[in-house]
Amino acid sequence: MAADQNVLEAHLAANRERRMEDYTAFLSIPSISALPAHNADSQRAAEWLAGALRAAGLEHVSAERTGGNPIVYGDWLHAEADAPTVLVYGHYDVQPVDPLDLWESPPFQPIVKGNRLQARGASDDKGQVMIHVAALDALLATRGGAPVNLKYVVEGEEESSSVHLDGWLQANRERLAADLAVISDTGFFEGNRPAITVGLRGIAAYQLDVRGPGVDLHSGSYGGTVENPIYALAAILAQLKGPDGRVRVPGFYDDVRTLSETDRAAFAALPMDEDAYLAETGSPMLHGEPDFSTLERKGGRPTLEINGIWGGFQGDGSKTIIPAHAHAKLTCRLVVDQEPERTFNKVRDYILAIAPPTVRVELTYFGGGLPSLTPIEHPATRAAARAIEATFGVEPLYIREGGSIPVAASFEDILGLPVVLLGFTPPDDRAHSPNEYMNLDNYETGIRTVVRFFDELRDTPLR
Amino acid sequence: MAADQNVLEAHLAANRERRMEDYTAFLSIPSISALPAHNADSQRAAEWLAGALRAAGLEHVSAERTGGNPIVYGDWLHAEADAPTVLVYGHYDVQPVDPLDLWESPPFQPIVKGNRLQARGASDDKGQVMIHVAALDALLATRGGAPVNLKYVVEGEEESSSVHLDGWLQANRERLAADLAVISDTGFFEGNRPAITVGLRGIAAYQLDVRGPGVDLHSGSYGGTVENPIYALAAILAQLKGPDGRVRVPGFYDDVRTLSETDRAAFAALPMDEDAYLAETGSPMLHGEPDFSTLERKGGRPTLEINGIWGGFQGDGSKTIIPAHAHAKLTCRLVVDQEPERTFNKVRDYILAIAPPTVRVELTYFGGGLPSLTPIEHPATRAAARAIEATFGVEPLYIREGGSIPVAASFEDILGLPVVLLGFTPPDDRAHSPNEYMNLDNYETGIRTVVRFFDELRDTPLR
Repeated sequence: MAADQNVLEAHLAANRERRMEDYTAFLSIPSISALPAHNADSQRAAEWLAGALRAAGLEHVSAERTGGNPIVYGDWLHAEADAPTVLVYGHYDVQPVDPLDLWESPPFQPIVKGNRLQARGASDDKGQVMIHVAALDALLATRGGAPVNLKYVVEGEEESSSVHLDGWLQANRERLAADLAVISDTGFFEGNRPAITVGLRGIAAYQLDVRGPGVDLHSGSYGGTVENPIYALAAILAQLKGPDGRVRVPGFYDDVRTLSETDRAAFAALPMDEDAYLAETGSPMLHGEPDFSTLERKGGRPTLEINGIWGGFQGDGSKTIIPAHAHAKLTCRLVVDQEPERTFNKVRDYILAIAPPTVRVELTYFGGGLPSLTPIEHPATRAAARAIEATFGVEPLYIREGGSIPVAASFEDILGLPVVLLGFTPPDDRAHSPNEYMNLDNYETGIRTVVRFFDELRDTPLR
Repeated sequence: MAADQNVLEAHLAANRERRMEDYTAFLSIPSISALPAHNADSQRAAEWLAGALRAAGLEHVSAERTGGNPIVYGDWLHAEADAPTVLVYGHYDVQPVDPLDLWESPPFQPIVKGNRLQARGASDDKGQVMIHVAALDALLATRGGAPVNLKYVVEGEEESSSVHLDGWLQANRERLAADLAVISDTGFFEGNRPAITVGLRGIAAYQLDVRGPGVDLHSGSYGGTVENPIYALAAILAQLKGPDGRVRVPGFYDDVRTLSETDRAAFAALPMDEDAYLAETGSPMLHGEPDFSTLERKGGRPTLEINGIWGGFQGDGSKTIIPAHAHAKLTCRLVVDQEPERTFNKVRDYILAIAPPTVRVELTYFGGGLPSLTPIEHPATRAAARAIEATFGVEPLYIREGGSIPVAASFEDILGLPVVLLGFTPPDDRAHSPNEYMNLDNYETGIRTVVRFFDELRDTPLR
């Protein structure tokens, strides 16, 4: 492997300039998926990427039709018998660029500043896609093959809710059969410390409607004789959580997988400046379940949030009514092994049980997404960790994100694959903001990490 | 007095036709104060009324300038020494008439249907003003004088918040000195049963603002680590009242005057169909303090209502935020001897005491109005009751309205006068609605009641 490594390094060194030219050419295409005016640019980006994958040695490459921007597919399936098959996911579409006046340079004219490459998409996610292209190119050019079978899926609508991805995955389940999905759309921890994202929270979204009088009533003529629906709503909401932030819905925590010693050690290992975090929120103080750290509450515990509330009069001054109805929007963030609709049902049953008989209460389920967790102990996570340590020279941190990456759940649910979230962007990469950039050290080392990860996976039993 | 009565009846009988002509002429002027296009009509109605008051024998009559529609003033101050002075209040402006297509006849072309006179203003309040004009005319024509000194104040902006009345009262305090104010802008109880309104609730209006994060936060990235301002608001609101509707603010009921045996007997004497009342509200059930009847809770007990609430996302579907702030509009209905700002201060202190330290809470006082009560035992109320019994042949019921009549508080606060709310409209008079009407039996008997009331007051010590 040492000889292989020298050959690989020589190839990468020899091709560095071409690699940067390709990267900047890809970044120059304004493939903003949220803006219909850029649909042709997205098409152009898809075709450019298909060409780059073909040039790297991929087969069956095509920019496949969806109802929207194409999904670029390609594969290389000539690994040794019994080698695992790895599905690599990324996206070639980018965020809009406004406010344009805050950019130090035009967003689609990439420039290098020290060890940074600045452009829209430099990190999210064209940079990470190009890491995979470069790794593939290096492997096939220097060894004539890869240690694992590879299938690439690069979509063009991630920044506009991946509206056509799930249908395409459903329609191509057999072709996409694999042992593992690698999503490279995450990044490093604060201080640019290498990290693997091992968990994402799921979600369940719903609405609570409380109705009292048939119409808004005069608060003088009727006040004191009927229930006020806003009061009833407030009384219900106040019973959903305790003052300590713990959800009071019976059975809410039943399905929550207990944090293991390893999990808690991983959370504790993450650098965390509570004062800086608090300042970032603007809240008077941090708050939540007392038995868990801030990062544990954010990444490893479920929530019940009220996202919106309304009812009655909202204008200037005063209006003397008892409103006919009041409403709240709610979401739960979920952790394994919670299931969205089952969680909603528990909340609904509790609310209906505590609702006073003086009002009519209704709950509507909007939908949800499963939480996602590939444990630290999973062989694929272990392989990724070894690859990071071998290339970056440090053990990775393990992050659990509080939010969701819907495509992770899609690969788990539709294709039944474990997902490794292996990404290389710096934590302050300004994705979605002006002056987005990629750290070029992360980029170059990331290419080596991907090669090493595939090598590690060759001998890792995943089934 | 029997001889006087015969002369009075003969006069009223002889003048019935002219009296109806005057009434319909007054009703024909579309003096809609809320619509600037009718300002000239309001001016014309004021001048018409001034002429009618002069014709009845009033002195110092003028349509006095305000910033808006004139206030018509006139007096007769020649009663015997030691006779009390009575200030009579009414208004000559009327409500708008839309929806016009629901009127059975044009709103400003009065028509008689059986014992009803139908027109905008027939009951509210031109009809009641004309009862006073007719009573005055009958007294001065048949006796050459009245038993009490009289001052008439008829405004033209009652249906548009009486914006200039308080200033005019302030500026004319000496000229308006009296022993009693009689407001004829209320009516009879259900079943057209004669009634005196003895109480009105006051009000205190304010807003509650709860602030948490500096901006709306992503509920995935931050959920579980900071307080949700909507939850904090709900928890505060839920602690303001118990499930029985009783306000939990310490000291809230301290200033509430206990209902006397007489008060409770008067409430109990009022016909009340709870099923019909419930159906009218549209609520699933009636609700409120368990130790008080529905009418007691409405007329004799204070409230704390949430008139509006808002915060975060209110659109279709779901938005995954922890909102930066949440708000509620609140009002208290007050009964004697509660004071608006003192009551607000108690609510504010309680809320600030229970507010969690995880959010910033602010309360803003918008203003208020005093409750009003002229007890059943008050000599002026007793005199009005005797007048009703003598003319309508039944003892009056005593009503406490849940709402406020701001002018009642104005006469009490600015002029320091006890107020008797003596009105004659039928309870289903459709005031503010299409096909408003006056019951002509109420109207004719009402004239006799007013004459008798003044006679009763002559010998009633009010000071």
